[in-house]
Amino acid sequence: MSDGTAGLLDRLSLNQETVRQWSLPELADGCARAGVRGVGLWRAPVQEYGVAAAARLVRDAGLRVTSLCRGGFFTATDPARRAAALEDNRAAVDEAAALGTTTLVLVSGGLPPGSRDLPGARERVADALAELGPYAAERGVRLALEPLHPMYAADRCVVSTLAQALDLAERFPAGQVGVVVDTYHLWWDDTVGTQIGRAGGTGEEAASRIAAFQLADWVTPLPEGALLGRGQLGDGAVDLRWFRERVETAGYRGPIEVEIFNPALWARDGTDVLAEVVDRFLAHVG
Amino acid sequence: MSDGTAGLLDRLSLNQETVRQWSLPELADGCARAGVRGVGLWRAPVQEYGVAAAARLVRDAGLRVTSLCRGGFFTATDPARRAAALEDNRAAVDEAAALGTTTLVLVSGGLPPGSRDLPGARERVADALAELGPYAAERGVRLALEPLHPMYAADRCVVSTLAQALDLAERFPAGQVGVVVDTYHLWWDDTVGTQIGRAGGTGEEAASRIAAFQLADWVTPLPEGALLGRGQLGDGAVDLRWFRERVETAGYRGPIEVEIFNPALWARDGTDVLAEVVDRFLAHVG
Repeated sequence: MSDGTAGLLDRLSLNQETVRQWSLPELADGCARAGVRGVGLWRAPVQEYGVAAAARLVRDAGLRVTSLCRGGFFTATDPARRAAALEDNRAAVDEAAALGTTTLVLVSGGLPPGSRDLPGARERVADALAELGPYAAERGVRLALEPLHPMYAADRCVVSTLAQALDLAERFPAGQVGVVVDTYHLWWDDTVGTQIGRAGGTGEEAASRIAAFQLADWVTPLPEGALLGRGQLGDGAVDLRWFRERVETAGYRGPIEVEIFNPALWARDGTDVLAEVVDRFLAHVG
Repeated sequence: MSDGTAGLLDRLSLNQETVRQWSLPELADGCARAGVRGVGLWRAPVQEYGVAAAARLVRDAGLRVTSLCRGGFFTATDPARRAAALEDNRAAVDEAAALGTTTLVLVSGGLPPGSRDLPGARERVADALAELGPYAAERGVRLALEPLHPMYAADRCVVSTLAQALDLAERFPAGQVGVVVDTYHLWWDDTVGTQIGRAGGTGEEAASRIAAFQLADWVTPLPEGALLGRGQLGDGAVDLRWFRERVETAGYRGPIEVEIFNPALWARDGTDVLAEVVDRFLAHVG
């Protein structure tokens, strides 16, 4: 293994949804055995295991939590539901802080039932960021706004492009609100290279908006509901190495998280899946 | 019925895929009885019926053919396949001319198998437009480049936004290459209003790039393959009236074509479907 390979592998993080078949202890053990140093966690399994216990588990395994998924869902118009969403997001910030990660991934939310008002929904996302940004920053956590593929605009996320995410993030200090660059959501966009450069800012870490860099490949046909059809690295249409080079040119040197929702991976042995992820990562990203 | 309603209804065109259960004679008869003056046709059923016979059929029913779907699929790298695609597109231009429509809708094509080179595929679309534009214009047909939803970028159309389509179209005279504004593909894009204005140009018809305006609504969940999940007007997330107002502000006064691929509509009586389309059109577009 060359120094370059070792350096890149040090940056690999496994998002736990990629190996959903694993419990948290299996995840911690499996990553440690595979030499993977980072994990991206999800709130539900962490809460089920216990936040403090999960933090201890990953720390004892020598792992770094690179992100917590996810807060967000800010687009309700009903005041009680909005208040509940904000309260839940404060809890998510607290959980991120307890896990020792600086990055809370936010999925903005879709249109409320019956609504066709995309601009209004997007403004409610901005309002929520304004409320949560200071709370998060005080706890050492940055809100990482994730643009999701436009096919999710109605029911999941009204922020569909990196340009839109940056338009929102730039209303706030870089220490409060960043963005997620996820290849699955952004690969089709002919402006994404330019927008990654914009997200990098001056190239100094404190000014950069790139809070997380996530990988999955795009494969077809899409499954019903379009949620669980992400491809293993190298199986699809995305030029993953191009993305890595672009975020690095923009100054990003942080974790590279592999997040693949795919029932075919979940049906396999987790150790095999992780070994394949590592191989594919080195072959298609390195 | 007010004059405004009658005026708008005169612009309604029924794309035949919306009532796929109808034969061409049923389509001509059904539209004439419903007072619908325009139809959008597809090459396969027209070829099956005979191009000249189809042209006579719709003319005798007092109908105008507002577009022919579709040419395109320009992204192959193999020289023989490229040549075959161009030859097939010349035939499509000839068919459009024979049907008396000025508008040939083009779906650009996806990535060739195994390729990850989106910019290259997009350049091959430009090359094909350069070859076909003069041929089409000589026959009174304009190439109407259609940006398709980004979820089709890999396997169907590497042109995903109106901005991209205009970047390509503007390399050529407005009389040779225009664009399609289809609500289903573009509704999520926060820049689409600006781009519709750009497409309208000076507002004079000769300078406008808007070659066709098509309607379908966005409903979820997406079906497997994501192709046949378009919604009846008013059933989904799209602000259809906003789109009409934007294309009209941009100077467009042409046909408004309803194109919904949805097996639930195909399973019903075509006359009922068309009556519902007319009702929904007046309620949600007018």
